[in-house]
Amino acid sequence: MIKVGIIGSTGYAGQELVRILLQHPEAEIVWYGSRSYVDEKYSKIFGNMVNLVDEKCMGEDMDALAEQADVIFTATPQGLCGSLVNEKILSQTKIIDLSADFRIKDVAKYEQWYGITHQSPSFVAEAVYGLCEVNRQEIRTARLLANPGCFPTCSTLSIYPMAKEGFIDMNTIIIDAKSGTSGAGRGAKVANLYCEVNESIKPYGVASHRHTPEIEDQLSYASGEEVKINFTPHLVPMNRGILATSYATLKKSVSYEEVRAVYDKYYADEYFVRVLDRNVYPETRWVEGSNFVDVNFQIDERTGRIIMMGAIDNVVKGAAGQAVQNMNLMFGLEENTGLKIVPMFP
Amino acid sequence: MIKVGIIGSTGYAGQELVRILLQHPEAEIVWYGSRSYVDEKYSKIFGNMVNLVDEKCMGEDMDALAEQADVIFTATPQGLCGSLVNEKILSQTKIIDLSADFRIKDVAKYEQWYGITHQSPSFVAEAVYGLCEVNRQEIRTARLLANPGCFPTCSTLSIYPMAKEGFIDMNTIIIDAKSGTSGAGRGAKVANLYCEVNESIKPYGVASHRHTPEIEDQLSYASGEEVKINFTPHLVPMNRGILATSYATLKKSVSYEEVRAVYDKYYADEYFVRVLDRNVYPETRWVEGSNFVDVNFQIDERTGRIIMMGAIDNVVKGAAGQAVQNMNLMFGLEENTGLKIVPMFP
Amino acid sequence: MIKVGIIGSTGYAGQELVRILLQHPEAEIVWYGSRSYVDEKYSKIFGNMVNLVDEKCMGEDMDALAEQADVIFTATPQGLCGSLVNEKILSQTKIIDLSADFRIKDVAKYEQWYGITHQSPSFVAEAVYGLCEVNRQEIRTARLLANPGCFPTCSTLSIYPMAKEGFIDMNTIIIDAKSGTSGAGRGAKVANLYCEVNESIKPYGVASHRHTPEIEDQLSYASGEEVKINFTPHLVPMNRGILATSYATLKKSVSYEEVRAVYDKYYADEYFVRVLDRNVYPETRWVEGSNFVDVNFQIDERTGRIIMMGAIDNVVKGAAGQAVQNMNLMFGLEENTGLKIVPMFP
Amino acid sequence: MIKVGIIGSTGYAGQELVRILLQHPEAEIVWYGSRSYVDEKYSKIFGNMVNLVDEKCMGEDMDALAEQADVIFTATPQGLCGSLVNEKILSQTKIIDLSADFRIKDVAKYEQWYGITHQSPSFVAEAVYGLCEVNRQEIRTARLLANPGCFPTCSTLSIYPMAKEGFIDMNTIIIDAKSGTSGAGRGAKVANLYCEVNESIKPYGVASHRHTPEIEDQLSYASGEEVKINFTPHLVPMNRGILATSYATLKKSVSYEEVRAVYDKYYADEYFVRVLDRNVYPETRWVEGSNFVDVNFQIDERTGRIIMMGAIDNVVKGAAGQAVQNMNLMFGLEENTGLKIVPMFP
Repeated sequence: MIKVGIIGSTGYAGQELVRILLQHPEAEIVWYGSRSYVDEKYSKIFGNMVNLVDEKCMGEDMDALAEQADVIFTATPQGLCGSLVNEKILSQTKIIDLSADFRIKDVAKYEQWYGITHQSPSFVAEAVYGLCEVNRQEIRTARLLANPGCFPTCSTLSIYPMAKEGFIDMNTIIIDAKSGTSGAGRGAKVANLYCEVNESIKPYGVASHRHTPEIEDQLSYASGEEVKINFTPHLVPMNRGILATSYATLKKSVSYEEVRAVYDKYYADEYFVRVLDRNVYPETRWVEGSNFVDVNFQIDERTGRIIMMGAIDNVVKGAAGQAVQNMNLMFGLEENTGLKIVPMFP
Repeated sequence: MIKVGIIGSTGYAGQELVRILLQHPEAEIVWYGSRSYVDEKYSKIFGNMVNLVDEKCMGEDMDALAEQADVIFTATPQGLCGSLVNEKILSQTKIIDLSADFRIKDVAKYEQWYGITHQSPSFVAEAVYGLCEVNRQEIRTARLLANPGCFPTCSTLSIYPMAKEGFIDMNTIIIDAKSGTSGAGRGAKVANLYCEVNESIKPYGVASHRHTPEIEDQLSYASGEEVKINFTPHLVPMNRGILATSYATLKKSVSYEEVRAVYDKYYADEYFVRVLDRNVYPETRWVEGSNFVDVNFQIDERTGRIIMMGAIDNVVKGAAGQAVQNMNLMFGLEENTGLKIVPMFP
Repeated sequence: MIKVGIIGSTGYAGQELVRILLQHPEAEIVWYGSRSYVDEKYSKIFGNMVNLVDEKCMGEDMDALAEQADVIFTATPQGLCGSLVNEKILSQTKIIDLSADFRIKDVAKYEQWYGITHQSPSFVAEAVYGLCEVNRQEIRTARLLANPGCFPTCSTLSIYPMAKEGFIDMNTIIIDAKSGTSGAGRGAKVANLYCEVNESIKPYGVASHRHTPEIEDQLSYASGEEVKINFTPHLVPMNRGILATSYATLKKSVSYEEVRAVYDKYYADEYFVRVLDRNVYPETRWVEGSNFVDVNFQIDERTGRIIMMGAIDNVVKGAAGQAVQNMNLMFGLEENTGLKIVPMFP
Repeated sequence: MIKVGIIGSTGYAGQELVRILLQHPEAEIVWYGSRSYVDEKYSKIFGNMVNLVDEKCMGEDMDALAEQADVIFTATPQGLCGSLVNEKILSQTKIIDLSADFRIKDVAKYEQWYGITHQSPSFVAEAVYGLCEVNRQEIRTARLLANPGCFPTCSTLSIYPMAKEGFIDMNTIIIDAKSGTSGAGRGAKVANLYCEVNESIKPYGVASHRHTPEIEDQLSYASGEEVKINFTPHLVPMNRGILATSYATLKKSVSYEEVRAVYDKYYADEYFVRVLDRNVYPETRWVEGSNFVDVNFQIDERTGRIIMMGAIDNVVKGAAGQAVQNMNLMFGLEENTGLKIVPMFP
């Protein structure tokens, strides 16, 4: 059994880690970390865990935790993992960081977009970006894993085959994304109250959202050229789910079959990526609660563009599920162990 | 492996049976029955099933199905199971009927409340009412199982200990229940359109809802006296969940501890019933996707009444989950096999 | 033009006062009071008011306000109005208090249920309870008006004719109420975040909610006897609306027509109370945005009880709308001036 | 008083016409037309209209209606208005058609995108496209008015100043739009059931939606060149509201102030268009129930693009409200008569 510690177990991503790991046959949670709820029963905060989790919340003592855990998930705000990691800890345990601290290789770029001084830049090079479908090999041997952001996961995977095979003009990419409200976190803010979010949709972080450089990096690696995109997220009145609708100009006229073949080349053997049937578009309801990424595309011959669409559950494939997928790889398990969750509908 | 056939697999309860059974280690679905979608791919109707279910929908040929299946679930409108069942079928397979056809022992009462002539009244006596926590023994040997209604499951289990132990005046019981919209079914009706249900709550079937006699029967069995109740369901703008708030006059003044002891007497060993901590009330979000029933009570000394509350997921414990719990009992499996689902939040 | 000041204009009820008063032909807002947003533009907080309100928020200087305003609405937490009111202010202006401070005539009872020491008990006797349909005459001449609570408005008006005419046994009354989330206020609390409220229903304040004594008082006045009730509110995932489902034992067997005649006796001439057709039950969607109260009843001959149902928009008839209705009466206007709002659907 | 007839008064747009016209000081509804509900009381279908509308639904006899009404609104499916209009009717009354029949000047293009043979192509040239902010002059004298589509209204108005002034490369325009569910109509379809729409977002009509040519036409008129766009609508789990997020490449580097000046040039004097403050983006909740269009933009210097955003209430400015705005113009009234509705929040 893999002994797991969770720092930040009382946020939405942290709680989802608990949900998934409780049903994982090879993992056992030994530490429910929390800043706000130390010494409170975990099941008092999350009533779904009554009778399933008896433990109380513990603090964020990374050194103590490193001695008990085979792997630590940090589901915490930006900057925290960066401030805690060190060589001693990494020699004792593996770290899967759900924050952005180790996702961007260019520290200056990270600091600029996030407005934070990186506390452990020396570990950035070592960290492996945990987009399993792309970096599977490197993940297997990682000590420090940067779990991808929710928007980058959904956006990159829906565009990746076209970028990799050079079908699209990379500097025409526009990503218009829509997210459920769990992505806004569990902090007590007026903007996230029920009556403020319900019955409305709004854009935010227009031309400035911090997931932009992360997506650009991944698309640059895929295409071999420097990429600049437009990325606009929107807040949707629903709990879970991200839909990314991406637009790009095709380099030349291509048929449905040609594009489909490319998507199949990359994804036909991927358990978690489902390329949908022609004219069937991703909908977030069909992946809810699961680690699936549903993708598809539509060619618009009138404009010479391709519309690439992807849907994930932001809390699962966009956070906790992908983190466990990475854990499975890092510990030599089948990649989908504990993750063969059938999406729940309605 | 138990070979399972489902009649009515394209309704919400039927689809939930599929979700649960796909993750059940001892069951295998051999027949996806549907009246409306014969020969269509199941995963085309329910996009969550892409890559998980390859089968096409089949019809309702109960005779053919009886030869292939060890158990048949009928998740169909009232009257259908009653019109199909016969001795030959029951000699070949077991039937778990999710409709109301075999729940009420008094056929005249059934016919009066449902406005249907019962097509196979001779099997009513044999049918076992599948409220597992109450009728566990009889269920194990049943051939024909009447799976309880969603409201009756939630209402009965929250009141049962008080009724059984004679703490309450049975003819003062008022049950005010609230249900998510999946309970209204998947038929194309204006009343169930998004814009008609969203941002509203309404009562329906006031003093006339067909689950009334079913609840009265169960409470009568529990208390040993004939019971008449008021039962009022309400439609709530959410997908899943039932909350029942029940009121009754206490026969005498009792303490929290006395009542708590009675609830524990009946439920402390029940995996699926969670008696919550004092002053913590059931909320449907904490049971979503799971087979749990969360119950609790509050004594009001000012009025001499007790308020008994229960929450279930109507599609799971109120339909498909309880049906699988019954299947487990009928086939000698551990009762919670395939049902140790952690509730999903948010 | 009536000059209006609002203390607490940045809560949901306060903002609704603004919405209604902006469309009122005889009123003009001269003071947008707020504790949290002093000196901020009102339309920056509430984007619906862009181009409609140019003013900035001001503080809570009741003395200064009293000199400018003909009437002050206090849409503030319990205790505030009680701490500010005095003879000088009441000699200069009228006060319509949307909090509970002056609703309950028995100060000790108020202090017990609210856990607050009343700061101006000497004004309690003078204050008029502003349930317009019941106290119209007294309201016309009031200086200090206690605007009813949302649940008491809905509950009392749906039960009132039966209580007044002695049709029901008053000590059998059980009120099961359901409220949209705007009733929980605009404070930044985790419990009211979108993801915590959405897709769930829960009871709260069971046997202890502070609107209980207010309802009991009103029903006692109506029936002429001391009344104790059970009142259970529930939180519903919707913005607006209250539905109250009330149960009582009929003193004797009565026909639909007899009960209907009583409802018509009290409400046929009331603009804001709509007694619905037989077998049509109130739904909150049909009153949304308006000052209407939709009521109806169902007799259950099986149990000898009557189910009385009422629906209001909690922010309008349950708060701001009724406050303006009271203002109209207090200033000699037609009662529905500025309030003939057609409910908005969907 | 303007005598108004409504064909299709029992759909969402038709019902909104009723809501608005009931509060309009210069209009009176004389005909509640409906195909499905002839002879039923209107207030039985729409409970919000109890006590406000006593009339019963009538049929679609356009000839009879033309004799009684000064103006007829046709809020009906595509093709119906086209099949009913003729010279005699137009000589008796004015027609405001909320369908697409007369919006596109090129009949072949209309027939291709809509898959319908136009029944009265001879009237297409005469019809005036009722985007009031753009075609005000022509509207005043129109007999046959083509009320714009919901997506075209929102998209065109948010892009118009940039197109008109030549700031953007017209063939780089990508419009990603999001709509509430009332836009899907009131027909009984499984796809629009509460449980199918709730908790999900999906694209539809990708590269094929029928509002595409209408938007292209308007942008072509504005820019003086032939325009081809990408337009992708998405279905959002909310009742009302459209948000359009549009992207285009700027022809040259421009400052915030330069762009702002252009928006102000076109909209500073428009009552219904609100250009928001810098960095404040449109949200559908702030226009709910009103005829406002909230617009704003963000320049992205990194990519050389501008993001133009607009929000409307699809049922008001996107349908019934704009139709009444057109009626006001056609009858010489102040353009905002009966339309100074304050948006309702929450």
